[in-house]
Amino acid sequence: MKRWKPRGGNFPLLRPMSQVAGRLSIQVGAWFLQSQSGGSGILLGGVPGIRPGHVVVVGAGNSGAQAVQMAVGLGARVTVLDLDPHKLSAIDADYRGRVATLVANPANIGQATAAADLLVGAVLVPASRAPTVISREFIAGMRPGSVIVDIAIDQGGCVEGIRPTSHQAPVYREQEVNHYAVPNMPALTGRSSTLALTQATEPYLALLVEKGPAGAVAGHPDLARGVNTQAGRIMNAVVARELERW
Amino acid sequence: MKRWKPRGGNFPLLRPMSQVAGRLSIQVGAWFLQSQSGGSGILLGGVPGIRPGHVVVVGAGNSGAQAVQMAVGLGARVTVLDLDPHKLSAIDADYRGRVATLVANPANIGQATAAADLLVGAVLVPASRAPTVISREFIAGMRPGSVIVDIAIDQGGCVEGIRPTSHQAPVYREQEVNHYAVPNMPALTGRSSTLALTQATEPYLALLVEKGPAGAVAGHPDLARGVNTQAGRIMNAVVARELERW
Amino acid sequence: MKRWKPRGGNFPLLRPMSQVAGRLSIQVGAWFLQSQSGGSGILLGGVPGIRPGHVVVVGAGNSGAQAVQMAVGLGARVTVLDLDPHKLSAIDADYRGRVATLVANPANIGQATAAADLLVGAVLVPASRAPTVISREFIAGMRPGSVIVDIAIDQGGCVEGIRPTSHQAPVYREQEVNHYAVPNMPALTGRSSTLALTQATEPYLALLVEKGPAGAVAGHPDLARGVNTQAGRIMNAVVARELERW
Amino acid sequence: MKRWKPRGGNFPLLRPMSQVAGRLSIQVGAWFLQSQSGGSGILLGGVPGIRPGHVVVVGAGNSGAQAVQMAVGLGARVTVLDLDPHKLSAIDADYRGRVATLVANPANIGQATAAADLLVGAVLVPASRAPTVISREFIAGMRPGSVIVDIAIDQGGCVEGIRPTSHQAPVYREQEVNHYAVPNMPALTGRSSTLALTQATEPYLALLVEKGPAGAVAGHPDLARGVNTQAGRIMNAVVARELERW
Amino acid sequence: MKRWKPRGGNFPLLRPMSQVAGRLSIQVGAWFLQSQSGGSGILLGGVPGIRPGHVVVVGAGNSGAQAVQMAVGLGARVTVLDLDPHKLSAIDADYRGRVATLVANPANIGQATAAADLLVGAVLVPASRAPTVISREFIAGMRPGSVIVDIAIDQGGCVEGIRPTSHQAPVYREQEVNHYAVPNMPALTGRSSTLALTQATEPYLALLVEKGPAGAVAGHPDLARGVNTQAGRIMNAVVARELERW
Amino acid sequence: MKRWKPRGGNFPLLRPMSQVAGRLSIQVGAWFLQSQSGGSGILLGGVPGIRPGHVVVVGAGNSGAQAVQMAVGLGARVTVLDLDPHKLSAIDADYRGRVATLVANPANIGQATAAADLLVGAVLVPASRAPTVISREFIAGMRPGSVIVDIAIDQGGCVEGIRPTSHQAPVYREQEVNHYAVPNMPALTGRSSTLALTQATEPYLALLVEKGPAGAVAGHPDLARGVNTQAGRIMNAVVARELERW
Repeated sequence: MKRWKPRGGNFPLLRPMSQVAGRLSIQVGAWFLQSQSGGSGILLGGVPGIRPGHVVVVGAGNSGAQAVQMAVGLGARVTVLDLDPHKLSAIDADYRGRVATLVANPANIGQATAAADLLVGAVLVPASRAPTVISREFIAGMRPGSVIVDIAIDQGGCVEGIRPTSHQAPVYREQEVNHYAVPNMPALTGRSSTLALTQATEPYLALLVEKGPAGAVAGHPDLARGVNTQAGRIMNAVVARELERW
Repeated sequence: MKRWKPRGGNFPLLRPMSQVAGRLSIQVGAWFLQSQSGGSGILLGGVPGIRPGHVVVVGAGNSGAQAVQMAVGLGARVTVLDLDPHKLSAIDADYRGRVATLVANPANIGQATAAADLLVGAVLVPASRAPTVISREFIAGMRPGSVIVDIAIDQGGCVEGIRPTSHQAPVYREQEVNHYAVPNMPALTGRSSTLALTQATEPYLALLVEKGPAGAVAGHPDLARGVNTQAGRIMNAVVARELERW
Repeated sequence: MKRWKPRGGNFPLLRPMSQVAGRLSIQVGAWFLQSQSGGSGILLGGVPGIRPGHVVVVGAGNSGAQAVQMAVGLGARVTVLDLDPHKLSAIDADYRGRVATLVANPANIGQATAAADLLVGAVLVPASRAPTVISREFIAGMRPGSVIVDIAIDQGGCVEGIRPTSHQAPVYREQEVNHYAVPNMPALTGRSSTLALTQATEPYLALLVEKGPAGAVAGHPDLARGVNTQAGRIMNAVVARELERW
Repeated sequence: MKRWKPRGGNFPLLRPMSQVAGRLSIQVGAWFLQSQSGGSGILLGGVPGIRPGHVVVVGAGNSGAQAVQMAVGLGARVTVLDLDPHKLSAIDADYRGRVATLVANPANIGQATAAADLLVGAVLVPASRAPTVISREFIAGMRPGSVIVDIAIDQGGCVEGIRPTSHQAPVYREQEVNHYAVPNMPALTGRSSTLALTQATEPYLALLVEKGPAGAVAGHPDLARGVNTQAGRIMNAVVARELERW
Repeated sequence: MKRWKPRGGNFPLLRPMSQVAGRLSIQVGAWFLQSQSGGSGILLGGVPGIRPGHVVVVGAGNSGAQAVQMAVGLGARVTVLDLDPHKLSAIDADYRGRVATLVANPANIGQATAAADLLVGAVLVPASRAPTVISREFIAGMRPGSVIVDIAIDQGGCVEGIRPTSHQAPVYREQEVNHYAVPNMPALTGRSSTLALTQATEPYLALLVEKGPAGAVAGHPDLARGVNTQAGRIMNAVVARELERW
Repeated sequence: MKRWKPRGGNFPLLRPMSQVAGRLSIQVGAWFLQSQSGGSGILLGGVPGIRPGHVVVVGAGNSGAQAVQMAVGLGARVTVLDLDPHKLSAIDADYRGRVATLVANPANIGQATAAADLLVGAVLVPASRAPTVISREFIAGMRPGSVIVDIAIDQGGCVEGIRPTSHQAPVYREQEVNHYAVPNMPALTGRSSTLALTQATEPYLALLVEKGPAGAVAGHPDLARGVNTQAGRIMNAVVARELERW
């Protein structure tokens, strides 16, 4: 088997971390729905004879799709929203009616938010600030004790006005809703996350060791795109622009 | 392979007909939801990006379970209600969160009815009149253009005030809701129904041919229970009671 | 969440309508298989103990894949044919043996047609006339009372000699087979179709409103490709060619 | 956890062996369909673009249900026949249209046999000779190179005229069909079978050790029913009757 | 629909609470596997490219089956042990190889415990003390940071030496393993549990209201079996025996 | 339907043969695990109450994915390894935790190999020698009686030191492990393979017939890339290079 050659353009090192965060969003959200955590006391999957909880995932990308899978696994009612009809069609085909898919226009986001027990914000635009697609007004419509998990908090969050929390104090309550916005969620499952990350980075390290930085970058445009500074200069346009603002 | 020995107590000849009716209820209901049939114009499974239709099945017995299976198959959102917690647990286990199960108390029936695009009444009590568990008041809460299919119409129907319709004029509109209440639904799929029925009756016929009526009845209590008249007398208590009312 | 940017080349506005038509083809076909509709009286999913009906879908594209999903959902035996081995592999992987996949050569189409209770023609070539892959000779081999639904009728149909029908008189009988060929099938479920279509068109409308027609077209090649006439001239080559024939 | 108490009446020690044989029937049958084994050269699951093979299982009991599961797993088209409508309904519910279920009358058995690439005979009546439900005439209708596996061979077989084969010479060819009829199929997977059998027998051994034979039998009617000889006398009526014939 | 008639013998009021506890055991266990909770930092479902966590459920009854379903839903590797071969066969049929089933003898329990990241003790014997099937010695074999959830703690627990914890301090660490043993787990999801419990008790309340205590008990043996004290005397033999020990 | 146009770059004629080989690898491996074949006597799917066998597939491409599907179908525990994280993510999404996915680094390959009952080597690099990713040292860690099937043997094999076997003598034993390395596995199912291959080649033949060799090659770059010799010269660089070594 040839060594894996990095494929550019899709943030290969972030990808597994996004997957971890997406999966964790549901188990974390389920926890903060518990009565002892100040939540509404809803069991996501319910039990036979009562309504299950409703999980709404905004964003059907790498993180959001994992959140959908876990929410389905726990037996919740699940709705997912995205702007890309191809992503919605893919989820519809995979789940064959098990998951409701909605175009992520403001009307749909507002209605879905109001009906959510657990709302997962999973709208991330790589290398730029996340757009705030879930407005304060939408949150005002949520039932007391409901929970928001904003996976995009590392990039500013996709929930209007949300502020980062910490592993020590992971939630705050506002408008009677539990807000979870811990950056670096993968630290919750340190062992799994470390394994996933090191396996993703190892092929690049091997390249650097084998050919030296200059050689590795020269022969691998993917790696070249990842260079932030070289010889004292900032090479990455996005980073440069961000820093200029400071 | 030994010839199949009838197992008493579960209406072996009606069973396949109930299964046919349960399955048909969804394809018939989907038809009368169509705009050209005066329905609300909702596609049960929706398509990616829009909400699916909602099928509510009242009664999780032999008919209802088939209706659930077909509604899931067409991609609808599905809720099923029954009084028996064991039946709800069985459906919950089979569908693992794909189908919401609710205890069939009036509050739940009322809420579910109001949220239904297609309501299937599948509450049948063998050999007695079906109870009317879906009241006129509940129907008043339904959206215009929604559809009710009452599988129990052969036994009086489980929908308050419903009146039988015919294959020629299968629906009538009341409270802006399409009511479908054709007795003998299996006639819609005559070929399949005939095959199912004759295969179920054939072992009994073989018994009668082989041993004669008296011999067959003597040796097979199941068959004996099915005897309605003998030597000019009504043998079946339920039938006798019903006829006395006339 | 960024506004959705149209992705060219796959008819983004037709896509949801094709999905609707594909899904409808099965519920419409099931209806016209009914004895009361002059059909063979076959229940697509059968019931335990009897053979299910057989749905054959020719074309595994956007419409055909939806038809396959619904036919599986109703419990039918399902066979799908296409010329593209990648599409067949994708369906095979999704359904893991539940659906038979066949290369769409004439021999296979002929055999499958003869074995079909419900035949769905779903061969559409965007922006050009559908090829007639199902010949009259093949139809002659079908069982009496079987049904053909030609989703491609909007583009001339993929069934030899088929002629358009209407929502008022949706089928005609020829060679003892029910032919359903209503253009604009999505009108059957007006509400769902309208929602799907408006959600797909809305991002383009927003563009036009925001930037004006000239600006929108200038900055969005996808939209530019959709311009049919401009300043009195026909801009679209296919349309121009078609109209010349008149 | 209380020690498991034997439940009478269902041959608890034979049960796991029947399960092993049922599962093995498909992998053995697949092998003898291979061209190098004189079979028709059919791959049970086919590949995308060609028809899969057809597995027909006669008998939906403990063995037959396992055969069905494995045949589905390998991607074959699968049909199962039984006389008991409850067993057929159970399989239909489990597989939701993936498996065709047929009442096991001679007409259906004959048609299904003729269409089979692999025919599994799984009709066992515990403690008595298996009925021969698959006649020579049916086999004459099979395609050359097809395969029969008779799981019931330990009890005489359910295929007319079949004769036992051995692990050394497991098949013979007759009417151009490969006949596999090895008694003690579980020996093929000695390790798995031994583990399954010893785990099933261990609770009974523990009883015998703990209470002595007389005590164990006295307190456990299930065990008592398993006593074949006692104080020089044959205790089991079936065994006694069988031996009298010698 | 007739009012639901209680079915005796299976603790109809406890049943939904057992289901809640079984489902909660996995989400609670996942939480205490997190690094911030002193756990091993394992994500139960892993992510693509790394091994998932391993959930071992001892006991395949009402609680255990729910735990299995949730663990499968989160993507874990799952093993379940029970003494009853019928329960193992049922789970095997439902999950078709997705869940490993093992006879619950000490050798298997020991091996499975050592391989578990999350061990769920779900061995409950209604109305008597739970047997301690998971010994201290087995726990000594577990990896540091693993988690035990003992659902049976209400009845003494099925883990050797385990002591009840509280919702305020839900876990303690012993042998480097997190022990969770909170009685009344359903309080975590107060809203869902209350709904489930009241719906189960309502039919009995209705009986009592309608017929009065004496009448209700007289006509309903199930209810009669639930009477603990009457006219100052203890009516339930198990309760009487337990209290004598005090 | 337009005639299928070949899509270059993915070996359209080899593809179905790789699929056949991938599917066969499991049924062949199951056979050589049998006690009578010198194997360890393990039933891949086990039966309820005992551990299933463990299938490890190295390589998640066209062949490997088919092997995974069949191994899942037979109820085995399944692990798949690949260097491409996208392929692992795709399998993870399809099987939702049913299959463990691991990055194919030497540490993971070694551990997985040691835990395998059946090891399938499915690492093929089209048009070049397969890399030997499974070392002798790894095989030394396997349990006696385990089985290796090397699908890549046509291209030299991906198992260190493996040597081709034949349909007459398909396995040899080394390090107590059964090695199966028959080139041209699809010959085992001659009928299915022939159908699959001819259906894949037919569109190219039709081109050649219709336009003649020169015309066909001129208009179809895909076909052009498949030309090995022309006018006495070797046209294919890989073939030329290979032959120079001779």
